[in-house]
Amino acid sequence: MSSGAGRCLEGMPCFSDITISLDGYVAGPNASLEEPLGRGGEELHDWLIATKAFRDRHGGEGGEDNADSRLVEANVARIGAVVMGRRMFSGGEGPWADDPNPNGWWGDDPPFHVPVFVLTHHAREPLRLGDTTFTFVDGFDEAFATAREAAGDREVHVAGGAEAIQEALAGGMLDELQLHVAPLFLGGGTRLFAEGAQADVELTGAVSSPAVAHLTYSVSRRA
Amino acid sequence: MSSGAGRCLEGMPCFSDITISLDGYVAGPNASLEEPLGRGGEELHDWLIATKAFRDRHGGEGGEDNADSRLVEANVARIGAVVMGRRMFSGGEGPWADDPNPNGWWGDDPPFHVPVFVLTHHAREPLRLGDTTFTFVDGFDEAFATAREAAGDREVHVAGGAEAIQEALAGGMLDELQLHVAPLFLGGGTRLFAEGAQADVELTGAVSSPAVAHLTYSVSRRA
Repeated sequence: MSSGAGRCLEGMPCFSDITISLDGYVAGPNASLEEPLGRGGEELHDWLIATKAFRDRHGGEGGEDNADSRLVEANVARIGAVVMGRRMFSGGEGPWADDPNPNGWWGDDPPFHVPVFVLTHHAREPLRLGDTTFTFVDGFDEAFATAREAAGDREVHVAGGAEAIQEALAGGMLDELQLHVAPLFLGGGTRLFAEGAQADVELTGAVSSPAVAHLTYSVSRRA
Repeated sequence: MSSGAGRCLEGMPCFSDITISLDGYVAGPNASLEEPLGRGGEELHDWLIATKAFRDRHGGEGGEDNADSRLVEANVARIGAVVMGRRMFSGGEGPWADDPNPNGWWGDDPPFHVPVFVLTHHAREPLRLGDTTFTFVDGFDEAFATAREAAGDREVHVAGGAEAIQEALAGGMLDELQLHVAPLFLGGGTRLFAEGAQADVELTGAVSSPAVAHLTYSVSRRA
């Protein structure tokens, strides 16, 4: 655990997957408490909500049993713990006492069902909602070290948002990045890759349905 | 030819294809006369230069006879005329007398082999280099009308750059957009889709080689 601290270890991979618009945004313009994904941003996930895997997991019925659904199912089975940014958790920043949404976006029964580690510089006791425990950690190194422990023999998943994924990529903490490219334009908002984003990647595959194209990359670790 | 003027007509489709980095750039930072694709930008086209189709067309030997090569070959066979922006032609702007590169980037034997229409507000006589004639036209409507005539029963190809493709998309002038997503980051430069880009598209397919992912979209015409 010495030199590898804060990074994924061999045999304990980390991955991330996120949906982006064709013009590269993970959220549309004017994101707010009422509209966390900004104008048009909800449509990013139309492909996901249409899948059988998503419906099964959220107590719904039906859904399409297609390549998208099988990918979602396979991803869910890989995840032993989740790391996410503060804004993906609640939209807030700064001290928790000032956060208008301190229990997060995810409702009383969050969809994670595994331990979630939220990146924040502001200390807070863990929060249990449904069968998901949110633990608040300061910095990626601590988040990864604890998430790795929690993940058991499954993988750590960097759920987002854009900043967290960029930081994980730049830090050589990811082994795999999956981009789900939704066939729509948002025209503004939060780009997944801000200016200066860098990583060494190899393309390992592309599959699509009419609803979305999935691009998978392996990411080189950095020393 | 009345109401359709300036737009592609049924049975006379227009398409565009362009290579972008994973972070969405068509050229890297600090593009210049010496380095027209900016820092790192040449690598965007590594996949293309590696294909047999490209080598055949440019008098080279060898090259990979793979899915990438077949796509290039199929695209080339579709093209009857090309529309491109002024910067893609020469990098210049303003009056031609002030353009440091008035005969363009493309050398004495440009790789087009079909009529090329260059968008510019500055009038100029046509320029013939090798078997390619460059005609200088003011505005998309005129460019499309003349390119359509020149294309015969083949298609009009909007070659780039980013601005020309955005304008064609926004104007409902394209039927198809192919994005070749190269597995690299440029970290800055010219984005294909600036803020405000909009179009209605449908994903029609995704294929990949280890070198690049090809995403194909059909674009809705606008009234």
